[in-house]
Amino acid sequence: MQRIKTAIVGASGYTGMELLRLLLVHPQAELVAATSRQEAGKRLGQVFPRFAKAPGAELVFSEPGPEAILASGAEVAFLALPHGVAAPIARGLLKLGLRIIDLSADFRLRDAAVYEEFYGQAHAAPELLAAAVYGLPEWRAEAIRDARLVAAPGCYPTSILLPLLPLLRGGLLDPATLVATSMSGVSGAGRKADLSLLFCECHESVRAYGLPKHRHLSEIEQELSLAADRKVILTFIPHLIPVNAGILTTTTATLREGVAPEAIGQALEAAYANADFVRLLGRGGCADTKNVTRTNFIDIGWQYDPRSRRVLLLSAEDNLGKGAGGQALQCFNLMFGLDATAGLQNF
Amino acid sequence: MQRIKTAIVGASGYTGMELLRLLLVHPQAELVAATSRQEAGKRLGQVFPRFAKAPGAELVFSEPGPEAILASGAEVAFLALPHGVAAPIARGLLKLGLRIIDLSADFRLRDAAVYEEFYGQAHAAPELLAAAVYGLPEWRAEAIRDARLVAAPGCYPTSILLPLLPLLRGGLLDPATLVATSMSGVSGAGRKADLSLLFCECHESVRAYGLPKHRHLSEIEQELSLAADRKVILTFIPHLIPVNAGILTTTTATLREGVAPEAIGQALEAAYANADFVRLLGRGGCADTKNVTRTNFIDIGWQYDPRSRRVLLLSAEDNLGKGAGGQALQCFNLMFGLDATAGLQNF
Amino acid sequence: MQRIKTAIVGASGYTGMELLRLLLVHPQAELVAATSRQEAGKRLGQVFPRFAKAPGAELVFSEPGPEAILASGAEVAFLALPHGVAAPIARGLLKLGLRIIDLSADFRLRDAAVYEEFYGQAHAAPELLAAAVYGLPEWRAEAIRDARLVAAPGCYPTSILLPLLPLLRGGLLDPATLVATSMSGVSGAGRKADLSLLFCECHESVRAYGLPKHRHLSEIEQELSLAADRKVILTFIPHLIPVNAGILTTTTATLREGVAPEAIGQALEAAYANADFVRLLGRGGCADTKNVTRTNFIDIGWQYDPRSRRVLLLSAEDNLGKGAGGQALQCFNLMFGLDATAGLQNF
Amino acid sequence: MQRIKTAIVGASGYTGMELLRLLLVHPQAELVAATSRQEAGKRLGQVFPRFAKAPGAELVFSEPGPEAILASGAEVAFLALPHGVAAPIARGLLKLGLRIIDLSADFRLRDAAVYEEFYGQAHAAPELLAAAVYGLPEWRAEAIRDARLVAAPGCYPTSILLPLLPLLRGGLLDPATLVATSMSGVSGAGRKADLSLLFCECHESVRAYGLPKHRHLSEIEQELSLAADRKVILTFIPHLIPVNAGILTTTTATLREGVAPEAIGQALEAAYANADFVRLLGRGGCADTKNVTRTNFIDIGWQYDPRSRRVLLLSAEDNLGKGAGGQALQCFNLMFGLDATAGLQNF
Repeated sequence: MQRIKTAIVGASGYTGMELLRLLLVHPQAELVAATSRQEAGKRLGQVFPRFAKAPGAELVFSEPGPEAILASGAEVAFLALPHGVAAPIARGLLKLGLRIIDLSADFRLRDAAVYEEFYGQAHAAPELLAAAVYGLPEWRAEAIRDARLVAAPGCYPTSILLPLLPLLRGGLLDPATLVATSMSGVSGAGRKADLSLLFCECHESVRAYGLPKHRHLSEIEQELSLAADRKVILTFIPHLIPVNAGILTTTTATLREGVAPEAIGQALEAAYANADFVRLLGRGGCADTKNVTRTNFIDIGWQYDPRSRRVLLLSAEDNLGKGAGGQALQCFNLMFGLDATAGLQNF
Repeated sequence: MQRIKTAIVGASGYTGMELLRLLLVHPQAELVAATSRQEAGKRLGQVFPRFAKAPGAELVFSEPGPEAILASGAEVAFLALPHGVAAPIARGLLKLGLRIIDLSADFRLRDAAVYEEFYGQAHAAPELLAAAVYGLPEWRAEAIRDARLVAAPGCYPTSILLPLLPLLRGGLLDPATLVATSMSGVSGAGRKADLSLLFCECHESVRAYGLPKHRHLSEIEQELSLAADRKVILTFIPHLIPVNAGILTTTTATLREGVAPEAIGQALEAAYANADFVRLLGRGGCADTKNVTRTNFIDIGWQYDPRSRRVLLLSAEDNLGKGAGGQALQCFNLMFGLDATAGLQNF
Repeated sequence: MQRIKTAIVGASGYTGMELLRLLLVHPQAELVAATSRQEAGKRLGQVFPRFAKAPGAELVFSEPGPEAILASGAEVAFLALPHGVAAPIARGLLKLGLRIIDLSADFRLRDAAVYEEFYGQAHAAPELLAAAVYGLPEWRAEAIRDARLVAAPGCYPTSILLPLLPLLRGGLLDPATLVATSMSGVSGAGRKADLSLLFCECHESVRAYGLPKHRHLSEIEQELSLAADRKVILTFIPHLIPVNAGILTTTTATLREGVAPEAIGQALEAAYANADFVRLLGRGGCADTKNVTRTNFIDIGWQYDPRSRRVLLLSAEDNLGKGAGGQALQCFNLMFGLDATAGLQNF
Repeated sequence: MQRIKTAIVGASGYTGMELLRLLLVHPQAELVAATSRQEAGKRLGQVFPRFAKAPGAELVFSEPGPEAILASGAEVAFLALPHGVAAPIARGLLKLGLRIIDLSADFRLRDAAVYEEFYGQAHAAPELLAAAVYGLPEWRAEAIRDARLVAAPGCYPTSILLPLLPLLRGGLLDPATLVATSMSGVSGAGRKADLSLLFCECHESVRAYGLPKHRHLSEIEQELSLAADRKVILTFIPHLIPVNAGILTTTTATLREGVAPEAIGQALEAAYANADFVRLLGRGGCADTKNVTRTNFIDIGWQYDPRSRRVLLLSAEDNLGKGAGGQALQCFNLMFGLDATAGLQNF
């Protein structure tokens, strides 16, 4: 069987590392290029000793550059780059005929003005926004299949959207009452030499950050608004906790008048009973990040508090897995007609 | 100067250990008895090697028993016992003339029926509830000073109440919109051989638990209702995170119509500018547990989200410190007319 | 292709969990039975939520019992049981025609008297010792291929033996000078409700234990003595460190008179250049457990100190991987003629 | 009572932070100056929120400069600076009449040539070496009392020297057989933005580093040689483990012919029975860092392995406490005639 030739652009951060981890052993993918300005000239296994002796780990990091990526034979490129940097590279590679799975924020928003509001800079390739597909496979499988440019969702958004989308579509919750609290592992902050990310500054520590208007709110509210068919505003409070990987999100919302609590479980079942990477824990099920790290699963439990009439949604995923690299691979499998779980059967 | 003779009843758990840590070096306290069924006959320094060579660590754990405690000369006893166990022992020691600082839940609720609802058993000494004082020194200093029976507040309640009380008293928040999310270190679950508390079950893990009606809700709602002068119901979601100590609480509530966001900061300042153990971080200040562990401080920051009209309150404390042993000592200092910070000046 | 039918006996501890993780997705194995007295009747995915939705996770834990295991169709059984418990079960299953890969200590020693000395009890099946093969695939591939009973080596022994064996065989080190210091993750202590393994007792802690005569010394010295062709005694100091998984071992020994330091690197290369799961880091290479966790690799670096004439050997493995479940699977692949890396290509 | 006026030069790293933690509440010290190029102009409590509301935390970081430090009224300065930087500043302050407690390596070695060999640069103030006192209070109390320049020992050296010194002095061990393996918390590597010190690079990781000739060997061998009265060379292997604070050292050495193992315990007792900050755990006692963190204690246990004739020494200290700031304060107490435990009675 022929393997799809793939490239990773910006492969030396934690998201790039996760993509490497998955692509090096994907049975139907072949990694033909991995770029990194910083590590160019070194073998993958030198930069990431974990991958030494993996099949393909002899590949050498190259300078990013559309022509060189094209020359590698890659049909598809995963972009693991900072926002703002990804857009022009995506444009260049699209022109050369590659399909793109972008893991930055550059193509997640439909409206360039919202991008500018939240990211503080003009969008570098607004003409591409209309054709970009927000890569949430549980809700956009058809569009992803045919897309040339997929915007893989952010880690926080995935953990917030998957439990909420069916409930807002079903009109079960009061959309004015949404509060999402997330706890993220430190890898979510990236692989950069920053004092605040030192071991001693994070260990035995927990703190909120990015309040009150974290950038991810833009894509979360876009998708929630589409689901609710009205403008949705939510309060989002991310926290940094001392784990390497994993996001736990706890979302609360008021149950709509006249809705029975059981409707929550039914709506989740209806949406995800056949979803390969969503595991429903049912009422009373408390998601735990230790069950999903290094997988592409999201675990979702829920509870109802009759005293306050609030629904509690509890979701756990790996911020680098279902929140980034795993989900990007899930999109890749769709785009190339592969088995949904190909390359994602690790536990 | 004469030192106050003190006893700790149930001193072999994590709360007992924290009380030992503080009392052994309190300049105006003398520890004359420490009881533990399990460790009776061993020296403090044997059971807790950390305390070996501390002044007083030669003391031997004794069997609990009111007469023996009385015979030690203790004027006051700290009870670090499970709920239900504390009440009869408190009654016995009160009869013998000791003053009591109880760290269990047994005397925190004014209403024995609420106790039974939340703790699933009849109260063992309901006649003592009327005279018991809820030991939150920032709000009840006068009553604590004269009390014979102080009920030290729970760890979660302290972190939720201190930021909320002045805001509810001031009528700044809509009391129907309260959602409190807490993250607690594992020591909060106690020192017991339980599979779910093993290192490998907690490390690289975060999970919610005790939903939707955690026992601590009872005392939280009691105190919030008193402050708001109406029945307050809140949603409370505790999580276990992989740190030894520390609680971070993030509380959200809708700002009342017509209230300016600045009123939040002003109310906190008015309440706590002179409080010895409350540190106000101001608007945008994100509390971090690493700054409060092993101290009696609570750090409180806040933020306002104009998009959702929600106030975010961020508080950090040590669950064993301001959330248990430190606060109990703060009450002790009040009860015996000592300096507020005596024995609590560790950083 | 037909898949080999396999059983795991004692599958509810951490070693059992690792075997499940590997066998559930091994392309040429089918898990037909998993036993656990404690969890009998529950599905694998209930006991270990991580495996929910894995192929095969619907399997139900059964009571251990040779006849039932035979009835499952299993050709081979992995025993993840305490020492002493494994031997009689192995005997029963061997009689029924199954091949056995035992992960306990019961069949690692050639001499039942040494077993009794180190394990404090008479051996339960001494008649099987002669035919049992010590399952270190890098040194016993031929014997493992044909074995009916393989004794998978202990976690510490694997990390100590692999660097030392070629050097002792080559006569490069003075065997009287061996000191091995190991640091192990907490999963090595097993999944049992023990106060000393609580999160709060292990986090922010490091301590030695099991001195001076840890049980694993027996098999380490047996194998070193065979390699050196003389009786070898070593000093072994295991430590518990706050990580879930991983063992780092640092071994020192004096270089024999007249031997050039470069001979160390050459001997390692000669032994392991073609070994699938040994990665040589060369002189100056410092092994790091974070590169081997959840893999079957052992990373080996070395250094020479001319001031003291000592060789330093640094090895890292996952105690549950190359130190237990991974290595057992490596034996399995050999025993059934499969690709060496089948089912072990996770990174 | 008059308090000694003290200054900390270079107070914004982890060692400086520990000195602040101790000096701010030392009953007989007053902190009058704290310097930091990087943080000059900010209050202590701003840079280290943990210290906010501590007595004295309103002090403002100043630029380092001998005249300004003199003007503060300081009688003694603690230098928490990198090696090479400390020497000229020490010279300047000594000239102005201050006494110096230097926590860098600059004055620990008696021989400027050894300094140059190990630190790779010429010594900046070799004329001061003769008068400098190596500040190990258990062995040099008299000299420290009168010293104008004390060189506080390194963290690793303290943990290695204290168990070994009495044994080498007593001639109990073969000095040619010393191997010391240490495990250090990440704070030992300093507070600097370095990729290798990120949370995700240290968590779930353990690795050796600095082999085979760590800089601390120079002072360790100097002191061991003085004790043994002959040139001593040892092998030293430091490791980084994922804890904030704490060093555990395991040292092995062969018992001299004709020496009874009990002599080890007797020699330790003879040396340290009255030492305020050494806690002897006896034969079989395994030191654990969790019992010494944030204290000035070193815990020492030992074991004898008759099979190999090796003695095992196990010592635990806080690398920032007895390994740095605590020990510096212990010297300070001696130099100014204070109680040995003044300001060091925290548990």
